Amino acid sequence: MTELEKSMESLITVFHRYAKEGGNKTTLSKKELKKLMEKELPNFLTTQKNPDTVSSIIKDLDQNKDDELDFEEFVPFVAGLTIACEKHYALHHENKGKK
Amino acid sequence: MTELEKSMESLITVFHRYAKEGGNKTTLSKKELKKLMEKELPNFLTTQKNPDTVSSIIKDLDQNKDDELDFEEFVPFVAGLTIACEKHYALHHENKGKK
Repeated sequence: MTELEKSMESLITVFHRYAKEGGNKTTLSKKELKKLMEKELPNFLTTQKNPDTVSSIIKDLDQNKDDELDFEEFVPFVAGLTIACEKHYALHHENKGKK
Repeated sequence: MTELEKSMESLITVFHRYAKEGGNKTTLSKKELKKLMEKELPNFLTTQKNPDTVSSIIKDLDQNKDDELDFEEFVPFVAGLTIACEKHYALHHENKGKK
C-alpha cells in the first residue's frame, strides 16, 4: 500500500474505531466524537476557547440533522484541519529556505 | 503522534513531495499530479475510461484557474476518494457481520 493509500485508510479506520462504540455503529455521537478528538487530536480541544467546541463542530457538519456525524460529514472536519496544518508546514519550509 | 495526526501529515508530505519537483514549488502541475496519481494511487488511473482523467480532475478542482492545484484544491480530491473507499469498507464490514 502507498503512503497516500495508508493515509486514506487510517482516516477510515480511525473513524470506525470510535463510531462503532455505541448506538449507531456507523456514525459518531457527540460522546464518540469528543473521545476521538481527545485521543487522536490531543492538542486540538485544549487550544479551543469554546468549552463546547464538540457541539458546535457537530452543529456545523451535521448535514442531515441527526445529531451524529457519518463519515461523509466527518471528512470535511479533518480536511479543514489538515489545510490549516499545511499552511504552517508551508510557512515553516519557506522560512527554512530563507536561512 | 497519533494515527490520525500521521494520516494528516502524510497527506501534506505526499502533496509537497510531488509539488516541489518543478515550476511553482507549492502547487501540482498536470505533470506532477499525474506522477503523484501513478505512484500513490496506482489503481486509480488504470480504472478510468477517460484517457485524460488528470486534465478533468484539474479542471474540476482548480478554483483560481491557474492550471495547477494548490493543497487546498487538492484535498477535496483525496477526500472524495476516501469517502468512496469508505462506502466499500462499510459494505464489506456489514456483510462480514451477517455471515
